This record gives sequence, structure tokens and C-alpha cells, in this order.
Amino acid sequence: MSDAPKDAPSDAKGVCVVIGAGDGVGGAIARAFAAEGHPVVVTRRARNLEQLEALAANIRAAGGRAEARGVDAREEAEMIALVDDIEAKIGPIEIMVFNIGANVRFSLTETTSRVFTKVWEMACFAGFLAAREAARVMTPRGRGSILITGATASVRGREGFSAFAAAKAGLRVMAQSAARELGPKGIHVAHVVVDGAIDGVFTRSNRTDVEDLLARNVILKPEEIAANYVWLHNQQRSAWTHELDLRPWSETW
Amino acid sequence: MSDAPKDAPSDAKGVCVVIGAGDGVGGAIARAFAAEGHPVVVTRRARNLEQLEALAANIRAAGGRAEARGVDAREEAEMIALVDDIEAKIGPIEIMVFNIGANVRFSLTETTSRVFTKVWEMACFAGFLAAREAARVMTPRGRGSILITGATASVRGREGFSAFAAAKAGLRVMAQSAARELGPKGIHVAHVVVDGAIDGVFTRSNRTDVEDLLARNVILKPEEIAANYVWLHNQQRSAWTHELDLRPWSETW
Amino acid sequence: MSDAPKDAPSDAKGVCVVIGAGDGVGGAIARAFAAEGHPVVVTRRARNLEQLEALAANIRAAGGRAEARGVDAREEAEMIALVDDIEAKIGPIEIMVFNIGANVRFSLTETTSRVFTKVWEMACFAGFLAAREAARVMTPRGRGSILITGATASVRGREGFSAFAAAKAGLRVMAQSAARELGPKGIHVAHVVVDGAIDGVFTRSNRTDVEDLLARNVILKPEEIAANYVWLHNQQRSAWTHELDLRPWSETW
Amino acid sequence: MSDAPKDAPSDAKGVCVVIGAGDGVGGAIARAFAAEGHPVVVTRRARNLEQLEALAANIRAAGGRAEARGVDAREEAEMIALVDDIEAKIGPIEIMVFNIGANVRFSLTETTSRVFTKVWEMACFAGFLAAREAARVMTPRGRGSILITGATASVRGREGFSAFAAAKAGLRVMAQSAARELGPKGIHVAHVVVDGAIDGVFTRSNRTDVEDLLARNVILKPEEIAANYVWLHNQQRSAWTHELDLRPWSETW
Repeated sequence: MSDAPKDAPSDAKGVCVVIGAGDGVGGAIARAFAAEGHPVVVTRRARNLEQLEALAANIRAAGGRAEARGVDAREEAEMIALVDDIEAKIGPIEIMVFNIGANVRFSLTETTSRVFTKVWEMACFAGFLAAREAARVMTPRGRGSILITGATASVRGREGFSAFAAAKAGLRVMAQSAARELGPKGIHVAHVVVDGAIDGVFTRSNRTDVEDLLARNVILKPEEIAANYVWLHNQQRSAWTHELDLRPWSETW
Repeated sequence: MSDAPKDAPSDAKGVCVVIGAGDGVGGAIARAFAAEGHPVVVTRRARNLEQLEALAANIRAAGGRAEARGVDAREEAEMIALVDDIEAKIGPIEIMVFNIGANVRFSLTETTSRVFTKVWEMACFAGFLAAREAARVMTPRGRGSILITGATASVRGREGFSAFAAAKAGLRVMAQSAARELGPKGIHVAHVVVDGAIDGVFTRSNRTDVEDLLARNVILKPEEIAANYVWLHNQQRSAWTHELDLRPWSETW
Repeated sequence: MSDAPKDAPSDAKGVCVVIGAGDGVGGAIARAFAAEGHPVVVTRRARNLEQLEALAANIRAAGGRAEARGVDAREEAEMIALVDDIEAKIGPIEIMVFNIGANVRFSLTETTSRVFTKVWEMACFAGFLAAREAARVMTPRGRGSILITGATASVRGREGFSAFAAAKAGLRVMAQSAARELGPKGIHVAHVVVDGAIDGVFTRSNRTDVEDLLARNVILKPEEIAANYVWLHNQQRSAWTHELDLRPWSETW
Repeated sequence: MSDAPKDAPSDAKGVCVVIGAGDGVGGAIARAFAAEGHPVVVTRRARNLEQLEALAANIRAAGGRAEARGVDAREEAEMIALVDDIEAKIGPIEIMVFNIGANVRFSLTETTSRVFTKVWEMACFAGFLAAREAARVMTPRGRGSILITGATASVRGREGFSAFAAAKAGLRVMAQSAARELGPKGIHVAHVVVDGAIDGVFTRSNRTDVEDLLARNVILKPEEIAANYVWLHNQQRSAWTHELDLRPWSETW
């Protein structure tokens, strides 16, 4: 990959890194960028790597390039090493996706400092590290996309969501600061507000009507969310989006 | 076109109406939807119809279907007649684009009531009529997209923009109300905040460096804006966007 | 009244004009400023002047100075004449309060163009006229407050509120533009987002439990709203507020 | 102090705690509540306690009740102990003010994880602890105010402010969540967006024209900011404000 700006043609496509590919959305995003020809690296914490290996194998079986890495995204040294290793062994990082959630619900008085801190580490601090490390390698090349998954709590506090909303709002405004700083350097930072139930393990373990919801499209489909991440990355630099929302048609908000 | 929801396959593509196709953005949107196979109807006020006819002819020369109509979008009877006529003679309206601007700058004390009213009629009231008339024919079919062009003034007041910002903010919140009301009826309403200078007659008459700006992608290209309108329309209904921004990479905001 | 800035001492207090004093809130605001020693002029449309005359008489009986005027606030000539007449006969206008609501609820497709226009004329255009005419006489003096009543619909669209929300959002962003323009000229523009049921004729005609609501403070009391308008006017110019919300403690939002 | 709601009369006024009284604003808030008859407790980190002791002595010399405490507001155990100690020895806490800033400016790539974390601990995590501990003792009494100092960065990211804006945005949305949760329990949570230069040690060490700025009121005066905190606390519960901004009249924003 050359130093050419994002819009220029290039023989080889840069790497897409998905931090937090443990759920349906992260996996779908990885598959979508792999289908576009990008080598993908999917990460999650080391303790449940089988699922992640299966995702990577699944992408390779479909003709893509994919690797799974066990990484604690809250550990600065691990994130620096991950980025350096990918750049050295796989190729230049073209897309960094940050997709770690940490949705918990506690009343304010029942929110322990441990919960408040852990949620922030996962949902905000890790996002800062991912964005900063991506910026470090993208800035000299003057190209790349940093795509960040948000939630309604990113824009509005709500009873029972002190910890989650504080972390997601911090992540969003970090992304906004980064967009303003990195845009003129050729790096596209976008924040996606995902609002509504998403098809996946979590939803399926809590509801029995998911097939019906899917048939009626009243639940977010990970592959449709993912398509928007690909779209954001492919936007030409004369017209970049920095924030969009995604909701099922039936959602009231 | 059947009563099938937007996501269902369909032999014939529905009509795309672009209200306010007098500038570069409206024309580009019309060309983009025509390229997707939609018959397009482009409108603007009757007094400058040559330019609009040229746009339609240009689309037809490229293999598309296009008609130009002189319509005063602020006139309820004209808008009702336009929609009825298109539905009767061309086909069901699948996409309604509202793209009339009215960017004027006056200090508050120098804003005449005539200016305040005219700007609102063009930028807000006409948008309401377009949305309402689109909703009228789309609701029974349970499908269709209403796409509305906004500006930074839609979200924030600014010195010298009392009239423009008031109109655009009204348009945006009308769109938000419509999105919440029409979403569950299968109609996708989206508002696009376009921020920055756009290549076109207006900019070219005020600047001499447009070719340079274009080469560096630091000015919004109408065709890139248009691509996002097509994207919004093509979003599957499990993941609809109701608002996004578009800015050149170099823009500080 | 001298040309001294707002913060300077002054022997006589300037006039407070309340446009839209037909409801409980406007009346309470008038009483509150009268209690502070400001001569007040209360207006509403001419057809129901008895109630307004009673309000003025009530203020005078309490030792204040008050006049009632029948004015159609949507008529530019009437607003210009009102301001000129007050300045000539009563004194310099120090506070302009715009308090006309127009809360209607219709689905988008059932919103007639007449309704959309009338609501805008009352809730947005009349507010522009009031602000502009106040700015005209306040700017040379370098002092004065323009205080505008908003609603939750001012900041967010909602199903059934296309017309109301569009008008109130336009009013808010007009106020924002005016604040940015007039602040450096010494004029304090503020927008108050009132959210929740308010004690008054409308609420009492729709509910039978108002006394209970009042006792529990779960309904907005006009005199408490009014106290905040007085507070805003009395803020020293080193620390002005341009927007605040007011809600009963029990309100969820 | 009885269990009576905030609006009820009470012989003794509850305690006002100001977390972060090391700067001019915190000190002014303490003085303002002391002048209203509230015993005040001012805190800051132990290493610079002389200044804080001087503030407390100054308040006592003016006839108020005041104590200085060296507290690391980021330490849960210290905050719990502080609140318990005040409740046991001084009286029930009626107002909790959180006023710790942490304004730093670094480009994203130069923001160390240490800086990002420290800024969050001071500006967000400590605010959560203060709000939670206040809620713990206020909830059983069904009354009290939690007042939080914000900044423009609370609502908008900006180049160079990734760390500060992320922390302040997290604090704001924590406050929003708390307001929605605690309001119906009788506790008033408000967030104040302070925008502009403030008179104080920091500004005076960076500018030589502060006296001129003060004379023209183009710089925020701590005592004027403080007056708004008192106002917020004194709002009757039928009309509570949850967010307001404070800016010098001359500020463009």
C-alpha cells in the first residue's frame, strides 16, 4: 500500500482491525470488510478465543483473509503491540473498528466504583487506545478510517445507566475530538449510534421471538449494521459522515 | 409496483421526485437515482425551466427516464397536483427528495418580515408539503423514502442567520417528527446535514480556485452527496438512518 | 433611564412587555416583573381583552403599573406601533417576553397547510417580530433582555407534532441566532424550555386532580416559572444564561 | 433538619459541601452558600491545604460556618468517610457541589494513557463518587441538591481535547442519568455549562489585562457563577432546571 490518499487506487487493500469481535455486530463487520477484500484481524479477550477462531476460520472458508487475536483492549502495551505486529506481519491498517460494549444497568446508588471504572475502561478508555494507536500509524500515510460503535446512551443519560451512559458519552466526544483533529490529516473518524435490539446471542437468550422479529425486520440485523460501516469507509473524502444513527424502521425513540 | 415492503423485490422501480433540482446537488441526486433505474421527476420554479429541461434531457441521453416540471413547491395545490399526476402517469413515488435551500444572511434587525417569511416558505413550509404529500401516497403502500437536505444552520443558530436557521431548524424537526410517525408505517425519513462549500454555480461565481478545491477534495462534490442519498434509500429496514452529516475531510466544525 | 449598561444603577426601571399574556404563565411573568418595580404591558389578541384588562387591574391593585393592549403579534405593523407607543408614552423597554404557544397535535398527513402556517405564525414568526422590534430599541441603549418561552418540542420532533415542533424549533434557533448577535451588543437573549403540565385554565379543564398535583408540586406553577424569568433578567452580564429547562421534580424526560 | 421536603421551612440549614474548592469558582460557591446560612465544607487534595484553610477562615470571619478538609475526591473510601463524618459531626448534607476541573490540551496521538485516565478520574469518576455519596444520604430524606460544574467540552468534542472532553461529557451524562433517577426521589441534580475565561489565579497568571476584562464584564466573575448555584438550589420543586449555560455577554460561541 502506498502513501496515496484514501481515494486513490491501490493494488492491495489495507487491513481492517475489529476490536471487540465477540458479538454478532463485530463479527458481521469483519465478514463485511473481508468480503470487500480487506485482510481482517478480529480481537477479543483471550479467555474465549475459540469463538473468535471460529469466526476467522469462517471468513477464511469464504475466501477471505482473517486472523484472531486475544487482546485485552484496555491494556496499552497489548494494543501497541497488536498494531505494530499487524503492520509488520500483515499489512498497513486501513480501518480500525472499535466495537466493545459494556451495557450494564444499575441505579446510581448501587453502582460500585468498580463497575463504574470497569465499564469506562471497556467502553471508553479502550476506544481511546484503539483510536490513538490507529491514528499513530494512519497519520503518516494520510489515510484510514476509525469507526466507533455508539448507542443511544452515547447521547443521552437515563435512569439506571449512569455508568454505561457516562462511558459511551465519553467515547462519543473522544471520537468527535478525534474527527476534528484527524480529518484534516486524511483520517475519517465516524461514530455510529446503534439504537434498538440487535439479533445475537444476548437477544436470543432473552427472547423467544427472534425469528419473528427478524422476519419483520424490527430487530437490527448485524449484517445490515456492518454494511453501513463499509459504506462509511468507502465514502469519498469530499463528503464524509461523522455521525449517523441506525434503528429498525419500527423503533420509536 | 406492488404493495410489497421496500425490502421486497420488485420488477419496476418507483419514481424519484427531486423538489428543488435547480442546483448542482438536486441535479446530482436526480442523476444518481436515474442511474439506479428509477424514473425521475425534477422540479423547480417555472421561470427557469430551460436549465431543468437540460438536466432531464441529459439524464435521458444517459439512458435514464426523466421529466422536468415547473412547480412552485410552496403552493399546496401545485404540490398535490404534481404528486397525483406523477402517480397517475409515471408511476408510484418511491423516493421524495426535498432539496430547496434559501441561504440568506442578514442581521436580526435588518431581517424584514418578508425575508423571514419567504425563507420559511421555501426552506420549511415547502418541505412540509413535500413530506406530507409523499406520505399520503406512500403510507397505503407501506414503503418509500423521504430524504431532506439540511445544513449546519439546521442544528445551530448563528449571528446573521436568524431567518435561515429558523427555517432549517423547523424543517429538521418536522423531518424528525415525520420519521417517528412514518417509520412504523414503513416509510424511511432521513435528514442530511450538508456542511461546507459545494461545487456549483454559486460557488464558482464567488471563487476562482474551485478546480483546485475539487482536486484536493476540500469542497463537497454534488455526486458524492448524491451517492449518500441513494445509500439511505437502499438501507434495509432493519437498520435505517434518520440523520447523518456530510462534510469535506478538511472541514473544521 | 440612562444609556448606562444593564448592570448600572438606574432610578427608574424599564418597561417589561409580555407578548402573549393570555395564559397563566404570561400573567405570572407580568406580575413578577411588576413586583420588581417594572411597569408592565401585557398583550394578547384583541378579541379576549376582558381577561387581559383584569390581569392589568389586578397588578395595579397590588401596587404595580400595568396596561393591557390588544395586539395581533403576527402583524408587523401592530408590533412596530406597539413598541413605538410604549417607548413614547410609558418608557424604554427593558424586558421583552415572548410567550405565545400554539400547541396542536395532528398526524403529518392530517396537518393542513393552514394549520402548519398558523402555528408557525403564532409560535415562530411572532417571536421573530417581538425579538427584532425589541432589538431595534434596545440596541442603541446597549441593554435589555429578550426572554422566550420554549417547550420540549423546541429541541425534539415527535409523532403528531410536525407543525408545533417545527415552529418551536424555528423559534429556538432564531433565539440562538439572536443571542449570538445581540449578546455583544449588551442584550441578553434567553430561551426557556418549559417541560411538563402547567397549572392553568387548559390543564384545569382537562384534569380534576390539579389541586392534588399542586400540593405535591408535580405540576409547573406559573409563579415559579416566572421567578426564573426575573432571575434571567437580573443575571449580571459577566455570566448570562442563554438556555435553561424547567420541569417539575417528578417529571421523567 | 427534619424529613420535610426541600420546599418546607426548616430551622437549621443543611450543609453545603464543595468538592474542589481550590479555585476561584469553588471558593465563591462556598462563600455564597455560607452567606445564605448554610454551614459549608470545602475540600481539595491535602497537599495544598493552606489556601483552603484560608478560604474557610475567611468565611468564618464573615460570620459563616466553614471547615476545610483535605480529601482526594477520586478515592472512594475518602469520599464515603467525608460524607459520613459531615453527617455525624456537622449536619445533614443539603447541597453537594462538584467543581473539579482538569483542563488539559494534547493532540490525540500525544495523549498518554496516564493523562487520559487521570483527567477522567478527576473530572468524571470523582464526580460520580460525589453524586453517589450525596444521593446515599439525601435519598432517605427526599431532598437535597447535587450541582455539577461543566464546560463547553461537556457537550462538544474539539481538536486537542480528547481527554478533557471525554471526561466532561461523561460527567454530564452521568449527571443527566442521575437527574432522571433522583428527581422523582426529591433530589435536584443540575449541570452548569460554564463557557469562557474565569477570573482567577490561572487567568491572572496568563493575562495582564484581567482588571480591564473585569471592568467590562467580559470575563466570568466567580461570584456571579456562584449566585446561579444558589439560585438553582433555591428553585422550588415545581420548576427545576437540570442544565443551564453561563457565559459573559461578549462571548461568541
